[in-house]
Amino acid sequence: MSKKVINAALLGLGTVGTGVYKVLRQQRDEMEQKIGAVVEIKKILVRNLKKAAAKIDDPSVLTNNWKEIVEDDSIDLVIEVMGGIEPARTWILEAFQAGKHVVTANKDLVASYGSELLDSAAEYRRDFLFEASVAGGIPIIRPLKQCLAGNHISEVMGIVNGTTNFILTKMTQEGMEFAEALALATKLGYAEADPTADIQGLDAGRKMAIMASIAFNSRVTFQDVSTEGITQISSKDIRYAKELGCVIKLLGVARNTDTGIEVRVQPMLIPDTHPLATVNDSFNAVFVHGDAVDDAMFYGRGAGELPTASAIVGDVFDIVRNILADATGRIGCTCYKQLPIKDPDDMESRFFLRLHVDDRPGVLASIASVLGNNNVSIAQMIQKQKDGDLAEIVVVTSGVREGDFNDAMLIIEGMNVVHKVSSVIRVYGE
Amino acid sequence: MSKKVINAALLGLGTVGTGVYKVLRQQRDEMEQKIGAVVEIKKILVRNLKKAAAKIDDPSVLTNNWKEIVEDDSIDLVIEVMGGIEPARTWILEAFQAGKHVVTANKDLVASYGSELLDSAAEYRRDFLFEASVAGGIPIIRPLKQCLAGNHISEVMGIVNGTTNFILTKMTQEGMEFAEALALATKLGYAEADPTADIQGLDAGRKMAIMASIAFNSRVTFQDVSTEGITQISSKDIRYAKELGCVIKLLGVARNTDTGIEVRVQPMLIPDTHPLATVNDSFNAVFVHGDAVDDAMFYGRGAGELPTASAIVGDVFDIVRNILADATGRIGCTCYKQLPIKDPDDMESRFFLRLHVDDRPGVLASIASVLGNNNVSIAQMIQKQKDGDLAEIVVVTSGVREGDFNDAMLIIEGMNVVHKVSSVIRVYGE
Repeated sequence: MSKKVINAALLGLGTVGTGVYKVLRQQRDEMEQKIGAVVEIKKILVRNLKKAAAKIDDPSVLTNNWKEIVEDDSIDLVIEVMGGIEPARTWILEAFQAGKHVVTANKDLVASYGSELLDSAAEYRRDFLFEASVAGGIPIIRPLKQCLAGNHISEVMGIVNGTTNFILTKMTQEGMEFAEALALATKLGYAEADPTADIQGLDAGRKMAIMASIAFNSRVTFQDVSTEGITQISSKDIRYAKELGCVIKLLGVARNTDTGIEVRVQPMLIPDTHPLATVNDSFNAVFVHGDAVDDAMFYGRGAGELPTASAIVGDVFDIVRNILADATGRIGCTCYKQLPIKDPDDMESRFFLRLHVDDRPGVLASIASVLGNNNVSIAQMIQKQKDGDLAEIVVVTSGVREGDFNDAMLIIEGMNVVHKVSSVIRVYGE
Repeated sequence: MSKKVINAALLGLGTVGTGVYKVLRQQRDEMEQKIGAVVEIKKILVRNLKKAAAKIDDPSVLTNNWKEIVEDDSIDLVIEVMGGIEPARTWILEAFQAGKHVVTANKDLVASYGSELLDSAAEYRRDFLFEASVAGGIPIIRPLKQCLAGNHISEVMGIVNGTTNFILTKMTQEGMEFAEALALATKLGYAEADPTADIQGLDAGRKMAIMASIAFNSRVTFQDVSTEGITQISSKDIRYAKELGCVIKLLGVARNTDTGIEVRVQPMLIPDTHPLATVNDSFNAVFVHGDAVDDAMFYGRGAGELPTASAIVGDVFDIVRNILADATGRIGCTCYKQLPIKDPDDMESRFFLRLHVDDRPGVLASIASVLGNNNVSIAQMIQKQKDGDLAEIVVVTSGVREGDFNDAMLIIEGMNVVHKVSSVIRVYGE
């Protein structure tokens, strides 16, 4: 009996590309029994042929010419692990046109152009899968699209960036300041040379856009996500959070409310009894709340060579099964609604607020009155130790409209008795 | 455009059946956009027509005659939520023969007859899905078969029985004894009138057999699982475990080792820093270790009307998508290996051992020597407080062959100085 072979091309041979190459090799002996065919990497597109040759068994598969791949009719599927918007976007569109299926790990691309790419895939009845673009090795897209399809999902939230979670863990467990923890993350390879996308919450924002789109069946793009990074968090904030029974995590929170979808990535205080509070180091975890399943959580490695490759190869195997069943394009875009995106001013949040103020009678009352006049109700107000001549006060609000809170803060920042607004951090929950 | 309808029949209208009915109704308005067709419950098989009529909108769909369902060619799929081996087994086989797809939540059946049923489904190219049979609403079977298909999975372990987890949580957090906690579980509806299958670990054993089969691609049946319940666990054991930095959980542990598959359900001490240690009350969680993904965890409600229905409706929607893509039977049985099952005596375990012995010199030494002579090495030996005239000692062993440990225990039980072997509990980990 002749062996059924599915030919694939790999675009990129960096960390993730190398991982995919390795995992496919690890599966070589059982693929045929497991999925009915053998996946062979026929071409690998790289920039530097010489450098790439050192990484693989058979350098003859290397090319630096996209045409050699897209024009090769024996190649059934393309695995895009280059990253970046272009040329990835154009090449994926060309791949669909040429009748090829595509697997990608490219969150930047899916978060901004997912709709265009899924439409194109549907037009040519090809598969376009991107499990690896969210939370690395953790299965989350297929569970949302299939296992939990019987739910109206009202919330998806979690820790979806390993770099910032590593930094916050070090700040919490070892009392480091942000700069020191970032330096350690860089040294250990958890942070990239330019860490902006991670520490500013952009990377997490892209993942939240993708998950919100799938969970709520309505397109959410990266532009719709409110993002705030962790660069302003101090070890003092973390200590005060601890006194309140909380830890500080960079949380992605997507909610489907009656007045629209809200998606945000912000550092937040979360009770230390919440399962996410113990998700530490570079681990990721995603919480899902649905009307049938109630709470479910998915936990694992959000990045890394082999965990990311695990998700990619899962997608590749699914496409092979679709090809063999003649069922490609079986599950396409599931964004059949057009729900409004809520104005960030209309989102409701609780806030942790730390201020340095004049240490004299009446100051607390005047701040409380500004908050009250702007519909910001106070859940807790604590006078902390003196800081030189100044008093340090901490305010925790109830759930308030962000626009109202911002109005109040404009006034508070301008008050003579207020020397410094030292921290404004959201608090997760109602 | 005419609406595409897929007709389903529900076998059983107990807790889970009612849940499926509700969830399908909750999804009615969006099903067509989501999956391309509307699922309608055309028949519901019940024993008591009158009692069932009170539970649903349209009692005309009720029947107590299986023939009316199996002989109705307009019914595409059967949802079996009656439980028990017969007549469920025979009817599912007849459903395949009649060209119908089947979704079940029946772990007893899948754990013992999964192979026969999957073979029959394959013969007629029908789908047979059973996500709800393991860990209720938590997606685990589809993640194992698809998302993590690029892995060699070496271990699947977790808390897969909510009743016992509730009981152990109460014993741990509130110092209750087993009988008291069981009574509370019964009162709150977490335990059935006859709790045997739960508290003896049989229910968890069935789920572990199903998960091990899928994770290791080799058939494991319920008969292959070593099970032990939690009826012998005392609050004293839990207190001593706490002193050792551990909690006691009923764990299902399946391992694929070089010398065979081992699957067991046993109460075990697990370090309180392990993510499973904080899975409390009736929640379930499953840990998976794969060579690519590393550690992943799936957490949620392991039982209950709507969470279980969530898993069933996810399966139903998947079958609808297969029907529309003409790809039914797309993923069938994945047990393509025939790995040996390890003899329980050859499994390796660590043990926590509590003994009441004569309070005089030389006793510890004589027990230590019996253990040592049988290749049982001691990691920790602690003399606890006196209990009347007797001394209480606690021994924690290193990893030892269970057969060797049992030999040692036979001798220890026969020693004159040993008055009672009060507890023998395994310790998770190497």
